[in-house]
Amino acid sequence: MSNTIKKLAILGSTGSIGQQVLDIIGAFPGKFRIVGLAGGKNTSLLAEQISRFQPKLAYSPLKISLPDKTKLSSLEDIATHPEVDIVVIATSGKIGLAPTLAAIRSSKKIALANKEVLVMAGAIVVAETKRYEAQIFPIDSEHSAIWQCLRGEKAEVARLILTASGGPFYHYSPAQLTKVTIEEALRHPTWRMGKKVTIDSATLMNKGLEAIEAHWLFSIPFSKIEIVIHPQSVIHSLVEFIDGSLKAQLSIPDMHFSIQYALSYPKRFANPSLPRIDLTRLNSLTFETIDYSIFPCLQLALDAGKKGGTYPAVLCAADEIAVELFLKQHISFSGIAEIINKTISLHQGTTNPTLDDILAADEWARDTALKLTNKASLCLKQ
Amino acid sequence: MSNTIKKLAILGSTGSIGQQVLDIIGAFPGKFRIVGLAGGKNTSLLAEQISRFQPKLAYSPLKISLPDKTKLSSLEDIATHPEVDIVVIATSGKIGLAPTLAAIRSSKKIALANKEVLVMAGAIVVAETKRYEAQIFPIDSEHSAIWQCLRGEKAEVARLILTASGGPFYHYSPAQLTKVTIEEALRHPTWRMGKKVTIDSATLMNKGLEAIEAHWLFSIPFSKIEIVIHPQSVIHSLVEFIDGSLKAQLSIPDMHFSIQYALSYPKRFANPSLPRIDLTRLNSLTFETIDYSIFPCLQLALDAGKKGGTYPAVLCAADEIAVELFLKQHISFSGIAEIINKTISLHQGTTNPTLDDILAADEWARDTALKLTNKASLCLKQ
Repeated sequence: MSNTIKKLAILGSTGSIGQQVLDIIGAFPGKFRIVGLAGGKNTSLLAEQISRFQPKLAYSPLKISLPDKTKLSSLEDIATHPEVDIVVIATSGKIGLAPTLAAIRSSKKIALANKEVLVMAGAIVVAETKRYEAQIFPIDSEHSAIWQCLRGEKAEVARLILTASGGPFYHYSPAQLTKVTIEEALRHPTWRMGKKVTIDSATLMNKGLEAIEAHWLFSIPFSKIEIVIHPQSVIHSLVEFIDGSLKAQLSIPDMHFSIQYALSYPKRFANPSLPRIDLTRLNSLTFETIDYSIFPCLQLALDAGKKGGTYPAVLCAADEIAVELFLKQHISFSGIAEIINKTISLHQGTTNPTLDDILAADEWARDTALKLTNKASLCLKQ
Repeated sequence: MSNTIKKLAILGSTGSIGQQVLDIIGAFPGKFRIVGLAGGKNTSLLAEQISRFQPKLAYSPLKISLPDKTKLSSLEDIATHPEVDIVVIATSGKIGLAPTLAAIRSSKKIALANKEVLVMAGAIVVAETKRYEAQIFPIDSEHSAIWQCLRGEKAEVARLILTASGGPFYHYSPAQLTKVTIEEALRHPTWRMGKKVTIDSATLMNKGLEAIEAHWLFSIPFSKIEIVIHPQSVIHSLVEFIDGSLKAQLSIPDMHFSIQYALSYPKRFANPSLPRIDLTRLNSLTFETIDYSIFPCLQLALDAGKKGGTYPAVLCAADEIAVELFLKQHISFSGIAEIINKTISLHQGTTNPTLDDILAADEWARDTALKLTNKASLCLKQ
């Protein structure tokens, strides 16, 4: 970076994470400048963001009128623009994969919120990051916590301990889970997030995907990744070192903290608008073991992560279809795990897959998941 | 250090901390060598330690017969011996002050467990540490926690949060406290320690001294040091950064962890003999505000720390006398704070004191505390 103002591209600026990224940018006008914005289908919000932050480049999947200063561009061109220091990948699903790889190959710093990038293509992303001397800064609160705990430490890690709120159902029985409604599943006890990730939090698929991400981000085998239920979502994750000492990172559950850390790193910025923890006013902090029989999605994710190859891509794709079918009331809450399980069991995995192999496995898994539920005719977005 | 074996001197090897230091040394024979040992009055234990670790130099305040290889020496000579890399100050009381300063002026690394060194002479110790490019590594679990949380971080600290178990009496009323017996005061709920520090933990004087130490160790004003009751003693302290994010260090309450960290730093050593935390088997972690009316010693310590000069030395000396009077059943538990308060209120402080000023204030405070209780004739050890 030639000066102290960091120049940013944000892919997925109109989503839940993207909007919070812009909250942080807006709070520090002297520290960041937006070079490129890429939004989703909410073009009116994107137009507002463009008018406020005046990027050089913008991308919209739908028609949008741009001010003179702003040029219509592509995700890849925004992610690789020479002026950009940090590319924020706040997209969701596989759409983030190609621009992330493009940014990596331009040796950018990547602030990564898009789970699928590392889950689907972790081996390729990590290898290319090393090759092009790019850097990946996690935005997810759990990975941000681990990253903060590892700061200044050597590779002397015994375990990464990911905390999971457990979502709304961690004390349910399997029988109760079959009757869960969409409204119940969308009512997350501690975090406010988008619909897909909220359902993934209720099934704990989310935590399984995070374990796969942690495996790639921190070069840690799955045998050293542990998941514990921590209903208060105050300790965002922990690292146990080889000497038996643990470090934990804590904050009020609010994504602005980890977003700001990824953007300000290696500095920290004082931000009085973020809520402070008063330890003495917190509820007791508790930790519970996970009952994997209640959360089959978590086990499916861990198994797919350990198998590697194209399995995590199949897991992601099948989950995306299954969650959408659940949100459209075509299947029950328990049906989500069933579809994913069946799809994975039909998959013939490829080891050391290319990006094309991964994308083909993704397509195959979507088709298969839909066929399995006889919902192919629903023409879900892919 | 010319090679990977660290060469150590341990002052206070026969005390509670000193013995635990030797546990760690004994667990890693390829990593440490003992150059010097200085014990207390337990000469039979010191003789055992000398026979086992075969130091070049030894010091004993009482007569002791040494093997041929080991030469009788002084605390200062042991602390400044050219072969020594790390000097462990595991003494208690003001006896550690002169050898610590000698070690600092020999540009040693100091693993510091002796509270009085920084409490009595923090300004001098910190200035000399900078001047001679020495380093101080804290051994106390709270300061070790803060040191670990600050690892790799810039000076972007909003608050240091020291946790206090609260000792056995944090839920007592002032009336109940007047009836506390020695046995009750020595029954610490979570930590096993020497008698003096156990009583200081029960009065929370200990936590006040730790706040003064933290002030000097981490160059933090008292306004940014907070103390919370955390009865489980699992989170050993926390740092809040300017961005509102907190980091905490956790372990089973056992001094071996922080001792080993100070000795292994910047590395961490795998030590399977230390107990591991299973988060899911812990009790709930709770935090409570401190009722200063129950713990007047804590307020006295914080006030003395803020006043600075010779006041902290007077605090320490009066506390040492008062605790000894309590342990000898000459005063009540509540009497400890009364003696300290009266002694401090009679003191004419010196700003920017020399070491001689500090030692004179210490002597004055001991005399004064004894006179106040009409116990001068008891001829307590000073």
